[in-house]
Amino acid sequence: MADGGARLVGGIEAGGTKFVCAVGTGPDDVRAEARVPTTTPAETLGRVVAFFAEQAARAPLAALGVASFGPVDLDSRSPTFGRITTTPKPGWRDVDLVGPFRSALRVPVAFDTDVNAAALAEHRWGAGRGLGTLLYVTVGTGIGGGAVVDGRPLHGLVHPEMGHVRVPHDRARDPFDGVCPAHGDCWEGLATAPAIAARWGRPPETLPDDHPAWALEVDYLALGLANLVLTLSPERVVLGGGVMARAALYPLVRTGIGELLGGYLASPALAAGLTRYLVPPALGERAGVLGALWLAQGAAP
Amino acid sequence: MADGGARLVGGIEAGGTKFVCAVGTGPDDVRAEARVPTTTPAETLGRVVAFFAEQAARAPLAALGVASFGPVDLDSRSPTFGRITTTPKPGWRDVDLVGPFRSALRVPVAFDTDVNAAALAEHRWGAGRGLGTLLYVTVGTGIGGGAVVDGRPLHGLVHPEMGHVRVPHDRARDPFDGVCPAHGDCWEGLATAPAIAARWGRPPETLPDDHPAWALEVDYLALGLANLVLTLSPERVVLGGGVMARAALYPLVRTGIGELLGGYLASPALAAGLTRYLVPPALGERAGVLGALWLAQGAAP
Repeated sequence: MADGGARLVGGIEAGGTKFVCAVGTGPDDVRAEARVPTTTPAETLGRVVAFFAEQAARAPLAALGVASFGPVDLDSRSPTFGRITTTPKPGWRDVDLVGPFRSALRVPVAFDTDVNAAALAEHRWGAGRGLGTLLYVTVGTGIGGGAVVDGRPLHGLVHPEMGHVRVPHDRARDPFDGVCPAHGDCWEGLATAPAIAARWGRPPETLPDDHPAWALEVDYLALGLANLVLTLSPERVVLGGGVMARAALYPLVRTGIGELLGGYLASPALAAGLTRYLVPPALGERAGVLGALWLAQGAAP
Repeated sequence: MADGGARLVGGIEAGGTKFVCAVGTGPDDVRAEARVPTTTPAETLGRVVAFFAEQAARAPLAALGVASFGPVDLDSRSPTFGRITTTPKPGWRDVDLVGPFRSALRVPVAFDTDVNAAALAEHRWGAGRGLGTLLYVTVGTGIGGGAVVDGRPLHGLVHPEMGHVRVPHDRARDPFDGVCPAHGDCWEGLATAPAIAARWGRPPETLPDDHPAWALEVDYLALGLANLVLTLSPERVVLGGGVMARAALYPLVRTGIGELLGGYLASPALAAGLTRYLVPPALGERAGVLGALWLAQGAAP
């Protein structure tokens, strides 16, 4: 929809494999898009700046929003605000994702994590419309989580890193050590697509639905999500990402969460097998870049 | 302090063993207190009503705040608002903790969980002053957690039940099955005072500091708290409760959390061994009832 009063802005979803760029006012009014591979910071940021400079020459942009992979520094009082911090991705540690855009394009730049932006977009335009508290979780090459509380992204000290929580790991059933470089068998270390590929020696998309990989994956997803539900008490959970492209997982994960909660939380929202509680993203893969547009709207003068 | 403009109100911390009642305007102006044992709802609520009726006859109360053990229904649109819901405590399921006070005392009644109220009190008057996001965790007969986000308690769907998250449980090291009636070996099932007593056959306060119980307890506390930090990203964690009366646990838990985070979150607040990040309650055991007074201030006309 074209929101009343929405300005023409730019949005960037900065990811580990590509930067998705868009110009528009909202989901139904995206006027230009570009995808730039994530190579070196200089090359990637140069091409992204060039795209927006070209767009701005046609019609001025009121602001830019950047939704980045992390961890990042979101503290606007910090000297390293706008930077990626401790990423293991070669070449990207300490890279500034705000300054270069602000100086090249001369517009206000809003900055948040990719998952917070996706959570905001789903809350504004997608599966979380009208709710106060929404949790967005993506399970793909990593696990990321973003929460919207009372309509605002949850930041706090830094920003949540929900993918790195520890979940029970029964080594008798699953002797796999996990793939997280920082923590080994944290949730992300056990349940991402690279973890599945490393555990079974095959990419997850080649594993049939009846492969034992999926029962184990469902258990890990349910364990992590039940913990997040007990901690954040979200009104709805949006679960997406490459691993969840296998739609058969949704009912199994819902059942697993219900069993783990053990009837402890009494809410009508948790009835009927959680079918309305745990849902796929309504905005699909566009949630991140649309969230970046929404961040930009908030920064527009 | 006596807050400017604060009204004379009543506060109740409704617990599983006693109801703590207070009349005052804030921490430095508590004018009367009472402790009523938790027996049957009729007897206990009757004695609490009598205390406040007597106080109100001397000086009118502007409102009452109730901070309750849970789970409770906090949804003001719900027909069961103000009730305890699925507690295993005999006789207390579905008990209304708002209606009886409203009708007997004819004042507005605010209602929240005991841990949310304690988190609010620590945020307003204690160890979390000036912060945006605070996490309060108490470890005693149960484990409860409350969060303040942007100055408001985190509610969402129901309210957090952080004690019931699952943490890794190495049965080779600790074959104990856990004591949680709903979940067995969830965090609360493994790490509360009753869990320690059941595992080792002795009350925790009789175990010396060098007993292996404490190394295990520290590991469980660190696992659960690190997960909460990764999920909520609080600016500070206030950790209290009967188990934490053993002050020697604090530095060990801080070290454990630091190791589990693995340097993943870059923040000055996490430096120096987390000494300023994980702290005891500044208000001690009074946090709950003081939080109830603060809730009442918000409900006063």
